[in-house]
Order: sequence, then C-alpha cells, then structure tokens
Amino acid sequence: MYLMRIGPPGAEKPVVRVDDTHYVDVSDVTPDFDERFFAAGGPALLAERVATGERRAFAGERIGAPIARPHQILCIGLNYSDHAAETGQAVPDEPILFTKPPNTLIGPYDDVRIPRGSTKPDWEVELGIVIGRRTSYLDSVEEAGAAIAGYCVVNDVSERAFQMERGGQWSKGKSAETFNPAGPWLVTPDEIADVRNLGMWLDVSGTRRQTGSTATMIFDPYFLVHHLSQFMVLEPGDLINTGTPPGVGMGHKPQIWLQPGDVMELGIDGLGSQRQRVVGPR
Amino acid sequence: MYLMRIGPPGAEKPVVRVDDTHYVDVSDVTPDFDERFFAAGGPALLAERVATGERRAFAGERIGAPIARPHQILCIGLNYSDHAAETGQAVPDEPILFTKPPNTLIGPYDDVRIPRGSTKPDWEVELGIVIGRRTSYLDSVEEAGAAIAGYCVVNDVSERAFQMERGGQWSKGKSAETFNPAGPWLVTPDEIADVRNLGMWLDVSGTRRQTGSTATMIFDPYFLVHHLSQFMVLEPGDLINTGTPPGVGMGHKPQIWLQPGDVMELGIDGLGSQRQRVVGPR
Repeated sequence: MYLMRIGPPGAEKPVVRVDDTHYVDVSDVTPDFDERFFAAGGPALLAERVATGERRAFAGERIGAPIARPHQILCIGLNYSDHAAETGQAVPDEPILFTKPPNTLIGPYDDVRIPRGSTKPDWEVELGIVIGRRTSYLDSVEEAGAAIAGYCVVNDVSERAFQMERGGQWSKGKSAETFNPAGPWLVTPDEIADVRNLGMWLDVSGTRRQTGSTATMIFDPYFLVHHLSQFMVLEPGDLINTGTPPGVGMGHKPQIWLQPGDVMELGIDGLGSQRQRVVGPR
Repeated sequence: MYLMRIGPPGAEKPVVRVDDTHYVDVSDVTPDFDERFFAAGGPALLAERVATGERRAFAGERIGAPIARPHQILCIGLNYSDHAAETGQAVPDEPILFTKPPNTLIGPYDDVRIPRGSTKPDWEVELGIVIGRRTSYLDSVEEAGAAIAGYCVVNDVSERAFQMERGGQWSKGKSAETFNPAGPWLVTPDEIADVRNLGMWLDVSGTRRQTGSTATMIFDPYFLVHHLSQFMVLEPGDLINTGTPPGVGMGHKPQIWLQPGDVMELGIDGLGSQRQRVVGPR
C-alpha cells in the first residue's frame, strides 16, 4: 500500500495511491496519518476502504509529506561505510544518533530554503523508516519488522558549518525549516522485496551526485529499530532517517555546496522520487 | 500566574494555582497547556477566568508536567562555567545544543526509572524555558523576552555511559522514559524579579549535591532563545532545558551514580520544588 497526503501545507488529506494516476480518499477512515492512526493499526485499517472506495484521478494537487508531523525525527549518522570514508570519519562501532526538529518535515516537491548565515548547505538521500507501534526494549532484531509501518524517501538536508563548527553536537546543522523533505509515499513493507537491497540516487541541477544502495548500510533498518528501542520509547509515527550513501557535497574535492536556484532530484527504488528547488534565505 | 496540570498521566486537566492550597480549573478555557494554547495567547487567555472562577482546594491529585508533551525538548550543554570545569570540558564559545524525546516528560513527583543496561544514571537541576509563540530569526536578544511564556524546574536526568560512550553524540544518554521531570508549575515571567538570579539546589537521598544560581549561567535565557531562533523555528510550547550548575554525579571524585531507592529533591527559587523516587529498570 502507498500512503500519501495531498493538499495545501497544513491541510493535507490522507489518501492511498492506487496507481500513477488514481487514488482513494481515506479521510473518512482517519483524519490524518499521525500517531493516533499508526497506534490504532495504521495501514491495515485502510484495506477495506481502498478495495471499495471511489477511485479519483490526481488533479495536480500538492503532495505533502506522507505522514503528519511526528513525535520525533531520529537520524543515524555515518551509516554507509563509503560515506564515512568520504567525510574523513571512522566507521562507527554502533549507530550514531542525532535528531531533527519535527517541524523540518515538508513535502517531496516543496522548496528547500537555505537558512540565514549558511555557507555549507548540503544534501543527503536517505531511506526513512516510519514506526508503526509504541516500541521499547525489543528482545531481538527479528522483532523489529513488526514495529515498522513502512518506508519512504527522505532528504536529510544539512548545513555543515552549523553541524560541525558550532558547538560539537550536530543538531544546529540539521534543524532549519524545510530541511526534511519526505515522500512522495509511505510504502508498506509488503510492497518491497528486500529493504536491504534498494538502489538510491541524488542529482543536483542535473548532475548525478549520489549513487548507492541500502545494501551497503552498516546497520540495517531492523538493527536500527532494535538498537534505538534500548535507549528510548519509539512512538507510532516516529520517523528515522537512516543515513546517506557517498556523494554528499562535503565529501567532494573540492567541496560543493547548494546554491539558490539549484534543483535536487532524488529517489530510491520502489519508494518514488522527489524534486526540490533550492531558494535563498527569507 | 502559576500554571499546573493535575490528574492521572495522560488525563491531566489544566488549572491555575492561586495559593498553596487552592486552584482554579481552566479546562473550560483550554483543554490543555499545549502548542495550540500557547499559540493562541497562552496565560493571557486565563486572567478573567482566574479572577472570577471558583477556587477549589487541592485534594491530593497527582501533579503532572505543567505543559503537554511539546513539539520538542531542546537542551543546552555545559552552560555553567563551574559545571563545565567539573566534567573536564572546556567552557563553550557558544551554546551546545542537543535534544531529548518529548515523551521523556513526566510530572515533578513521578518515579524516575533507570533504563536497562544503565551503569551511570545522573541528575541535573535546570531552569526550563517554555516558548510562547512561533519564533524564528529574532533580530536581537532584547526581543527574546516576548517569546517566553514562562519558566519551570526541570530535572535533566542523564545516563553518562549512554551519553559519552555510545557514538559521540549525546542523545542516547538523554532519551530514556521518565528522564525529564518538569514542574510543579509553569511560572509566568511577571512573577519573577530576575530570572538571571535564582538560587537552585538538588539533594540525593538527603545529601545536598548541587548548589548554584542562574546568575552563573554562561548564556542567559534571552541569549539562548535568540541564538536558537537563528537555527530553527521554535514552536509555541517548546521546552528548553538550559543547563545545570556544578554537583552532578559525573563531577564528583569518585563519581556517584543514582541507585534504585534513591530520592531526588530539587528546586529553584520562586519556581517550586520536585521530588522523585528512583526505581530500577522494568
């Protein structure tokens, strides 16, 4: 199942994508794809409505992030060994955890705004995991699958000077408004043959910058959910950005940074693609 | 004005404390002290209701955190020069930012639960700031006061091994359930003569462990709100833990860690006091 939210920012309605041109409105089943929806059962609640509901044609509506603003956005750092190498940092012994403010979440085709004072804005195509149930102290990695509602493409937009040169922790470089495009869809796990073997890519203004595969993740999605559940209670609808493959601007020699007018296009096999225009500070 | 939330976890009702023994129920003005409440005007909405409402006697109800689960909990590290010294770290050039999951928020007298695998659980009495309006790119430190809804006591409970020895970023050591007691009250700024000169203290099982004053903060509340607003959009109801004075367990020689059965008591002049029993992992 492919979950989407369409409509103006802050007034998106939840729908299920049937094919490239049609959807079923499920706003009579749930007002949104939010914590309450996932806690109540999530996508499983929608099957009957999708089977019997009226199919409508997409009519150019804006596409929002496929989930409502979550309780938290967790991020994993340096989770591809070749990306760790390009940034000059050691491959971590265990997942590195940092966070983004939930209000950084935007739709997959919305503009990304460079923050004031920014000198090193950068891109990161990533696999996003959405949590499907309240999850704590999983006993095994095998149990993690049942805690996952689905997957989506995310762009973990970053400001490297804010991240690396402003106090030692990474949060400042991950927090600016518009810094977390997600979507176009939340794809349920049954639609994906193997989440540990999905090709991924990112172009900046027509030049391929990132090429990778989830096959080279150091810590796979099941490992991550199990691991995080030992340190905190994950809430339904929480989003986990799982790290980026090689090719970020920071890793190029010389380094390359986003400029106003750039266009980022990115995607992951089976999860769809995004396109964001980069705009200057407000 | 002193805002409180009383009742069972997850079913607290918003009230205004009139004196040590009486309150006015304001649940007919707002269902909760949450993002929507603060965005709509916050405490100013309650004045008429408090002036004319029925005064009820406290009857032993549980006291919850004085705000609903916020959009985010931001935390400032090493913000007292003498605390930085005791941890062996340099005084920072600018605020160090990290975060806690919003679901760590609990009431001021609730139990604090040591997480599984913990070896170094620690305490931190702190001044909490609650944001009163959507805030971004403040032009000056002077504007920050108008963005602050009030202040409260928080205990920024920490697990030092998870914080320092598990990946380099601090989040893992700040995220366990029950790790952010707050309250008993949210105190509006007009009730406080000078937030930059408040005594603060913390006892563990009857022994004074922390003694300090907000007068020795490196970056004061107004500086912090202005600074953070340059990196992100602060939402109404967001909570900022502003750092802790000397005397944490990590700073003692030899180091001291919380044990099941310990009792933490802590307070800040004018903001009330808390008391938490420490319990073992579930």
